[in-house]
Amino acid sequence: MTYCVAMRLREGLVFASDTRTNAGLDPIAIFRKMHVFERRGERSIVLLTSGNLATAQSVVSLLRERMAHEDVVNLCTVNSLFGAAQLVGDIVNEVIAHASSSQQNGGIDFSVNVLLGGQIRGESPRLFHIYSQGNFIEATEDTTYFQIGEVKYGKLIIGLVIHYDTSLDQTRKCALISFDSTIRSNLSVGMPIDLACYREDRFALEVERIADQDEHSNTLRRAWSDGLRSVFENLP
Amino acid sequence: MTYCVAMRLREGLVFASDTRTNAGLDPIAIFRKMHVFERRGERSIVLLTSGNLATAQSVVSLLRERMAHEDVVNLCTVNSLFGAAQLVGDIVNEVIAHASSSQQNGGIDFSVNVLLGGQIRGESPRLFHIYSQGNFIEATEDTTYFQIGEVKYGKLIIGLVIHYDTSLDQTRKCALISFDSTIRSNLSVGMPIDLACYREDRFALEVERIADQDEHSNTLRRAWSDGLRSVFENLP
Repeated sequence: MTYCVAMRLREGLVFASDTRTNAGLDPIAIFRKMHVFERRGERSIVLLTSGNLATAQSVVSLLRERMAHEDVVNLCTVNSLFGAAQLVGDIVNEVIAHASSSQQNGGIDFSVNVLLGGQIRGESPRLFHIYSQGNFIEATEDTTYFQIGEVKYGKLIIGLVIHYDTSLDQTRKCALISFDSTIRSNLSVGMPIDLACYREDRFALEVERIADQDEHSNTLRRAWSDGLRSVFENLP
Repeated sequence: MTYCVAMRLREGLVFASDTRTNAGLDPIAIFRKMHVFERRGERSIVLLTSGNLATAQSVVSLLRERMAHEDVVNLCTVNSLFGAAQLVGDIVNEVIAHASSSQQNGGIDFSVNVLLGGQIRGESPRLFHIYSQGNFIEATEDTTYFQIGEVKYGKLIIGLVIHYDTSLDQTRKCALISFDSTIRSNLSVGMPIDLACYREDRFALEVERIADQDEHSNTLRRAWSDGLRSVFENLP
């Protein structure tokens, strides 16, 4: 499994993804599910993927290959995030169709979900959830975030504190806590966490990897669970 | 869907279940998923069910029918909760086998999950999770609770605060909060909530139904979400 979340706020965007992949209980492995496509000063795009790892990796490889060719539509030439979402959707479709056409496809689920967000100069930051069918929806001021993968455990805190005007800093914290709730409950979601923050009109992402031993994140998680216990103990 | 939880503490047992049933997005209806079998002073048994409603109702009806016959094994004659779990498991098996044998069974999922807990004079309170296959597991001091149905949203608070020594009163509160988290996130789980508390050696259950308008429960839920927000705002 996987857990990824992306939020579209007034100030910008926050992305977070875990790094565990598994097929049943083993093998488990660490794979990056956050992919950054950036031309500093001009466009910053982040892709988060869940679902079939072979499909997800092929989609990312094809997107990168295309970027070597100026004459084909690619993430560096599209004029809008909507165009980027169309491109990713088409490639998702293509990869799944190819895998499904195999004589050996016996019941394998090749599907993926993709969160695509960022900003291309000339428009505001945008965020899309792209489905395996290649179609997609866009985040709005009413629904500011999308989750993919193992989404249920970490939803409570996001639903409670995130709205369009939440600061990037608070949103980043909220993402970490949402991951903590998920990792506590589900073996298929694991550290480290990849985290990316994007402030509107900066055209430069701040990307970091948060390790299991990260002191700040552990302090945050402890403060959160201690806080929850104390709220609980003081309930009327 | 459904959400039910049952906890086995040092002091006794707590059971809670929602009352919403649905087939897709509609029809939705209210059905009790908590069933009490009691001989005051001698045995108190509670059944919570999730899954196929026809199967669950048949199981409960067959259990009640059997109680009219002193000469067959029934919930009033078994000598232990283990015996009760065996009986329920056998009946679950029987009902599912019957439904599956229909020529019209086309792909319907007839399965149920059952939580069975209580006390029969002569032994301590016990709690079982009975699967559709009729086999079952029992709660221990290490794993003191079972959930069935839509279990993920409400797990965080239970995992954080419930252990074998938690008081019945605190556990009851925790169950309500766990339901609040679930109902916020999933349309297929709905009020009212049926709640039952059992104190060891009392052989009398305290059963109540908590309505959507229940003032105490709403105060509790508000205090919880306000508390969560304030913990979040004060994080380091």
